[in-house]
Amino acid sequence: MKNPSPYYAVIFTTQRTETDLGYKEMAKKMEDLAALQPGFLGYETARGDIGISISYWESLEAITQWKNHADHLEAQKLGRAKWYQWYKLRICKVEREYDFQRQDKG
Amino acid sequence: MKNPSPYYAVIFTTQRTETDLGYKEMAKKMEDLAALQPGFLGYETARGDIGISISYWESLEAITQWKNHADHLEAQKLGRAKWYQWYKLRICKVEREYDFQRQDKG
Repeated sequence: MKNPSPYYAVIFTTQRTETDLGYKEMAKKMEDLAALQPGFLGYETARGDIGISISYWESLEAITQWKNHADHLEAQKLGRAKWYQWYKLRICKVEREYDFQRQDKG
Repeated sequence: MKNPSPYYAVIFTTQRTETDLGYKEMAKKMEDLAALQPGFLGYETARGDIGISISYWESLEAITQWKNHADHLEAQKLGRAKWYQWYKLRICKVEREYDFQRQDKG
């Protein structure tokens, strides 16, 4: 992942409903489509009791463009109608970062 | 969770080693201890192929204080020695947020 400075993170924290129909396919489709957008830098996701998905972007303009992408608007609508009990979306500016990489296999 | 504006998010993205010994106990201990610190606002965590844990704070000063807490420094040291293959830590300023709450049970 490139690291321009500053860059932006969209933190999407979610509680799913019991309704799985179409969810995984749409999540994969949106992940693939986001990666093709101008200004996209990277994506991280994990799910436990809640889901946390974070996408990283070069600018607030890139985030707005992706938010308003026609296919993404349709996915957001379906998400509210079927897949999410609640969600919280936070737009953040990444101010500092630190990396650790292990030298041996642990 | 209170929502002062602005506030800060610490995104901790991790890849674990195979070494589980003591990890869960320490993770729980640090989660409980973080919640007692001045300026702590909330915590979210999920694990899939990677782990994502996010803590929320009132200020950068609160984040620095927690980073330098003696018990936390010891946990960080053990994390690098035993539990993490790699990690990335990002300090972010939350600029905007949106909530969705379902009205029915879905």
